[in-house]
Amino acid sequence: MAVTTAPDLDLADELTSLLGPDRVSVAAEVLETHSIDKWHASAPPDVVVLAKSRDDVVKTMRFAHEHGIPVTTRGAGVGYVGGAVPVRGGIVLSVRGMDRILEINTADGVAVIEPGVILDDLQKAVHDKGWYYPPDPASLKECSVGGNIATNAGGPRCLKYGVTRHYVLGLEVVLANGDVLVTGGRCHKNKTGFDLIGSFVGSEGMLGVVTQATLRLVPHPEARAMLTATFETFAEAATAVQSILNSRWQPSALEITDGFTLRAARNYLGAEALPDGNAHLIVEIDGRAESVKGELVALREFLSSLGTLSIGEAPDEESCEAIWQLRRDFSYSLRATGLIKLNEDIVVPRSKLVDLVNFAHQLQEETGIEVACFGHAGDGNIHTNLMVPNYHEDAEARARADEALDQLFHWVLDVGGAITGEHGIGLAKKRWYPDAVSEVGRGVHRAIKAALDPKGILNPGKFVE
Amino acid sequence: MAVTTAPDLDLADELTSLLGPDRVSVAAEVLETHSIDKWHASAPPDVVVLAKSRDDVVKTMRFAHEHGIPVTTRGAGVGYVGGAVPVRGGIVLSVRGMDRILEINTADGVAVIEPGVILDDLQKAVHDKGWYYPPDPASLKECSVGGNIATNAGGPRCLKYGVTRHYVLGLEVVLANGDVLVTGGRCHKNKTGFDLIGSFVGSEGMLGVVTQATLRLVPHPEARAMLTATFETFAEAATAVQSILNSRWQPSALEITDGFTLRAARNYLGAEALPDGNAHLIVEIDGRAESVKGELVALREFLSSLGTLSIGEAPDEESCEAIWQLRRDFSYSLRATGLIKLNEDIVVPRSKLVDLVNFAHQLQEETGIEVACFGHAGDGNIHTNLMVPNYHEDAEARARADEALDQLFHWVLDVGGAITGEHGIGLAKKRWYPDAVSEVGRGVHRAIKAALDPKGILNPGKFVE
Repeated sequence: MAVTTAPDLDLADELTSLLGPDRVSVAAEVLETHSIDKWHASAPPDVVVLAKSRDDVVKTMRFAHEHGIPVTTRGAGVGYVGGAVPVRGGIVLSVRGMDRILEINTADGVAVIEPGVILDDLQKAVHDKGWYYPPDPASLKECSVGGNIATNAGGPRCLKYGVTRHYVLGLEVVLANGDVLVTGGRCHKNKTGFDLIGSFVGSEGMLGVVTQATLRLVPHPEARAMLTATFETFAEAATAVQSILNSRWQPSALEITDGFTLRAARNYLGAEALPDGNAHLIVEIDGRAESVKGELVALREFLSSLGTLSIGEAPDEESCEAIWQLRRDFSYSLRATGLIKLNEDIVVPRSKLVDLVNFAHQLQEETGIEVACFGHAGDGNIHTNLMVPNYHEDAEARARADEALDQLFHWVLDVGGAITGEHGIGLAKKRWYPDAVSEVGRGVHRAIKAALDPKGILNPGKFVE
Repeated sequence: MAVTTAPDLDLADELTSLLGPDRVSVAAEVLETHSIDKWHASAPPDVVVLAKSRDDVVKTMRFAHEHGIPVTTRGAGVGYVGGAVPVRGGIVLSVRGMDRILEINTADGVAVIEPGVILDDLQKAVHDKGWYYPPDPASLKECSVGGNIATNAGGPRCLKYGVTRHYVLGLEVVLANGDVLVTGGRCHKNKTGFDLIGSFVGSEGMLGVVTQATLRLVPHPEARAMLTATFETFAEAATAVQSILNSRWQPSALEITDGFTLRAARNYLGAEALPDGNAHLIVEIDGRAESVKGELVALREFLSSLGTLSIGEAPDEESCEAIWQLRRDFSYSLRATGLIKLNEDIVVPRSKLVDLVNFAHQLQEETGIEVACFGHAGDGNIHTNLMVPNYHEDAEARARADEALDQLFHWVLDVGGAITGEHGIGLAKKRWYPDAVSEVGRGVHRAIKAALDPKGILNPGKFVE
């Protein structure tokens, strides 16, 4: 399904006559900002469409379909894997300007939004009414909900509340040929036909363009509280994760951090910012205010029986936010090392957490590349960061790092893990897609892609062509 | 995609030589039991394959694909919509005999099963280890998990815990041509490629045959407790549902029952079995034992401020089970009326609960057909039962009932509802599929069906052909 732009077509002129001049840009700085996301790949589009409505999207797709022009949809452009990089040129279709929250209806327990809405804006608007939209990727202040849908975004609280897919009740999608599909709606259960919503959520812009979503809301828990703990070893922290779950706790988040990350954090924040220990655990619980109060005492007692070096407590909203800020600072601390952080959102079966960190240490010894692990321990989704000096400038360093990534991903697949838990494949993981998905599986992907996008114009050059 | 059986092929002989005599039956009583499910339609297969392994399924599918023979997969055969009725004859492929629980691994938080496992057996085996597999359709003692996957089954506890889809981490599926697809695995998060699992869950046997599933387990809550309440009117009970959710409670179940059902229950169980009132509400909470104890007191106080006529309390496991038994007895009470119960699992946006019951009463007045409503109030999934005398014997009564169903479903769709929340479409709702799904949506269904089952041999005669 190779896609080429018709050479005699002036895309900008044609699109401008279809959509009007304020919807179309070929300005150098606009092309540049739409060439990249947060990963390091870059490729310029021929033209950027700044959609403001479904009709803009319909007209763009009809035009692109007729002429076989690549279309790469883009939300806020904060993806971590190059998923929105238009490697085949053509049109970048930005839906960032479609950013209206159309409705928040607590009686139905739904929010209806356009795809360009920033996640944090949605969460705040919902919270103001006492309700909750739980998915919480770390980029929540800058990512769009459309991008969350494209990658089936997760976050720490998905341990208890589930990923983005579990909150999408209805979608309006413009298909590759410009037809408008409305599927699902505002019902909290729906078994009418196949799960078309599931086909689009997580499809990384390759099957359609989401122009509206109806999201499920749940009652906002009255209160939350957190405990932090440090341990002598990562293995003890991982054992604590299993013990907590085996003792029938259902925490809303369970985050683990390894020694390398902690050392970087002490360098960045000052030694006094963190108690001693080579592993750090965060446990968040939520629910009724009185219950959370009692559970905090019981959980602290339980934790202290698990060989902790120190325990910290965050009993209220303000202190919880301070701990989440510390958690975010772990990431900034790694950046402050001056090394390039290759952030791989791998997942392992939960019993393999310790094996993963042991493998990371071994990889570090063998390659000289430092590896920092932290993430969502409850669901085995550990962000494994290879810390590489001069990755962009030094081809040899890059080759060594890519070889180390090869070893990491093959180890992950060997233990039954997954190469991506929440970022998606994009360009960053395209190389390992054939290792991760069998020939039969790739055939099913191709068949579904051909069924919905027969000309292969939607986000071409990614993992299915 | 019309499918016809090659007339010169002796199916039983051919399959017997492929699979051995103990896997194939054309015995009259076997054909008969495999002609039906719990709905009223019936159609005999030409032959029944009693699969014991994935290889049996692979051989059957390869053979059927080569010769273009219809294959209708069947689990425990307790579907409510005729989904497993082989309307085009051919092969019924029973996976009921593939009933092994292959692994329960609490360190990974997964169970690995074959599709014929009975749900209750799985739940008990998981509970014995202190873990939880929450989906709980009322038929849990007789339905198979494979059937749950085919219909994306729900149940009361899906309000808090989500439907079957949210618990399927990995699938082994034999495709229409006999190829074996393994997708997902034992990771709790996975964004590797499209959501192929979602394509199969809820596809009612039309896209592939599930031969193994890896299911997510969560820690079993330490305790649960329930409150029941009666109200003068259904509207007051529905308002209580909204008030509970608006006050930030996250109950594990919220079940509502209307006056007609309560009157039938009083006739069946005795007047003293239920306190006065024309509406009945069940609220279940779960969590840490100490928390549940405190929340029960607070919730009872809150409920009593909402105009209840009576409140009952179930503080422990035994008394909770008694209330769930009462809830099941509501269903038996309706059967005990001697009328045929047309059980429609419609869903409405939660704000329309009262409108639904008002419409049901109006329908009753206009048609003379009594209507009983009860179900999962928290997610708007209300089982709406038309109680029809002599449905099977009296063609005129049947025509009147079908006309009333027409009115009901069109009203449901008009208010933004769904024609099925958890039973599926099967044959029972096939007539309303074109009303519920747009032309574009039906086209997408056909495209996906053609991509995965180009000869149309899997469960033909249902909603996509």
